[in-house]
Amino acid sequence: MSRTQQMMTTHPRTEGTPAQDHAVLAAITALNGCAQTCTSCTDACLADEDVSHMTACIRRNQDCADLCRVTADILTRRTDPHDTLIQQVLLACRTACNACAIECGKHDHPHCRICADTCNGAELALKDLLQPPSITPHRTA
Amino acid sequence: MSRTQQMMTTHPRTEGTPAQDHAVLAAITALNGCAQTCTSCTDACLADEDVSHMTACIRRNQDCADLCRVTADILTRRTDPHDTLIQQVLLACRTACNACAIECGKHDHPHCRICADTCNGAELALKDLLQPPSITPHRTA
Amino acid sequence: MSRTQQMMTTHPRTEGTPAQDHAVLAAITALNGCAQTCTSCTDACLADEDVSHMTACIRRNQDCADLCRVTADILTRRTDPHDTLIQQVLLACRTACNACAIECGKHDHPHCRICADTCNGAELALKDLLQPPSITPHRTA
Amino acid sequence: MSRTQQMMTTHPRTEGTPAQDHAVLAAITALNGCAQTCTSCTDACLADEDVSHMTACIRRNQDCADLCRVTADILTRRTDPHDTLIQQVLLACRTACNACAIECGKHDHPHCRICADTCNGAELALKDLLQPPSITPHRTA
Repeated sequence: MSRTQQMMTTHPRTEGTPAQDHAVLAAITALNGCAQTCTSCTDACLADEDVSHMTACIRRNQDCADLCRVTADILTRRTDPHDTLIQQVLLACRTACNACAIECGKHDHPHCRICADTCNGAELALKDLLQPPSITPHRTA
Repeated sequence: MSRTQQMMTTHPRTEGTPAQDHAVLAAITALNGCAQTCTSCTDACLADEDVSHMTACIRRNQDCADLCRVTADILTRRTDPHDTLIQQVLLACRTACNACAIECGKHDHPHCRICADTCNGAELALKDLLQPPSITPHRTA
Repeated sequence: MSRTQQMMTTHPRTEGTPAQDHAVLAAITALNGCAQTCTSCTDACLADEDVSHMTACIRRNQDCADLCRVTADILTRRTDPHDTLIQQVLLACRTACNACAIECGKHDHPHCRICADTCNGAELALKDLLQPPSITPHRTA
Repeated sequence: MSRTQQMMTTHPRTEGTPAQDHAVLAAITALNGCAQTCTSCTDACLADEDVSHMTACIRRNQDCADLCRVTADILTRRTDPHDTLIQQVLLACRTACNACAIECGKHDHPHCRICADTCNGAELALKDLLQPPSITPHRTA
């Protein structure tokens, strides 16, 4: 059992179903890993000989790292959650992961390929937590 | 002219119209101020005698501080912006500001009243940057 | 091989000896895990029935989470490192981990015990990167 | 009276002397401003035609922005402060501000000159909070 899971199971608030908790746990783990990978890819791009061609990639990595971290923190907090806020953050974070995966996918650098894979994994984990649009009227309000 | 404005006007990328730049500048300033105020209100609530009644307020403040900071950073970056991502982050941040203003508004503590005002101001600044739903199909997709 | 290690080995800057890289990798992993655990412990303490007795613990967790994250990011960046800065951040982070481990160790809550263990592990990983005082004159300046 | 000052004066913990509070308030304000300026300078350097010559500057700006923000947050929290931790963070942050000011000072870009000024201001504000070495044995331990 990972530390993240141990912390989740010993938290006083344990209202989630096992399936929900599993999806949240998977997302927190994927997002923290993605934030770390994007921070590393930002710096690897900066150290690259052709850094002038990597500026869009650096930008995508920065936004993705920032959003993954905040989203992981918001999912980690179980005290008085705000469902609309969570759904909107998940949506923004998924867009950031998707955009970073696409941009990193354009480059042959091994660090970009690993990063694209990581972002795709994070996007998939987020999808499991996003409710279908038909039952999330707040997103069209 | 504020430092934030000086940095914006000396940035190599200056594609915005004066009206757009003005709205972005106002939002960055409001969001950084809101992040600072919410960080302070989180801690003031924690130091309160009736902290057990302030947990929802602390949660709202934490989420709002985190999102205001990330949103301010994303708006500050002008290199290769991603419009859909920006709109979705603005939306999530507005929800966080609104939710924090409502929660802080329930408490008589002077720090909560100042924080509610600050969150309302940040929400207003975000509204000016949010495009109307009819022309942002990505938000209903 | 972990993602963090894959990213490190594919980074254009690979000046470290295997032993140095191993210590840096271990620290990054421990610090990111510690930041996640402290964020979770902060919220678990907030949800506790006796939150009024947990305020010092929440404060230690917040500072520790913040410093672990920044320190992990600074260690992750390999482009143009600043040795004095790194040593000073490592020192502050070790103090934060140590202080959080001590405070969490005072409480019987399972989440606090897991967090104390995690902080102790992070402190140990940091120790391996800290140079002995005799050869770091900047720390006594 | 600034929002930061209003929040400080309405915080339940007001143990500081007026002179101490004034120095803390000045530091929080300077550090938040410096974090914003460094985030902006990071991105302006990235957008520069000669980005390959700006990588050290970007690195200094990233570390400085991160440390200024965490230090401002730690100073903002008044609940159960940890003096040794605070002094060590202040020291690391001062080094980051100093290193960023020096690096930005090497470049003719207007954004770098504004950033160097801002970093110098933050360093000065931090100096007022740093205790002389003779009475801070923890820093030489």
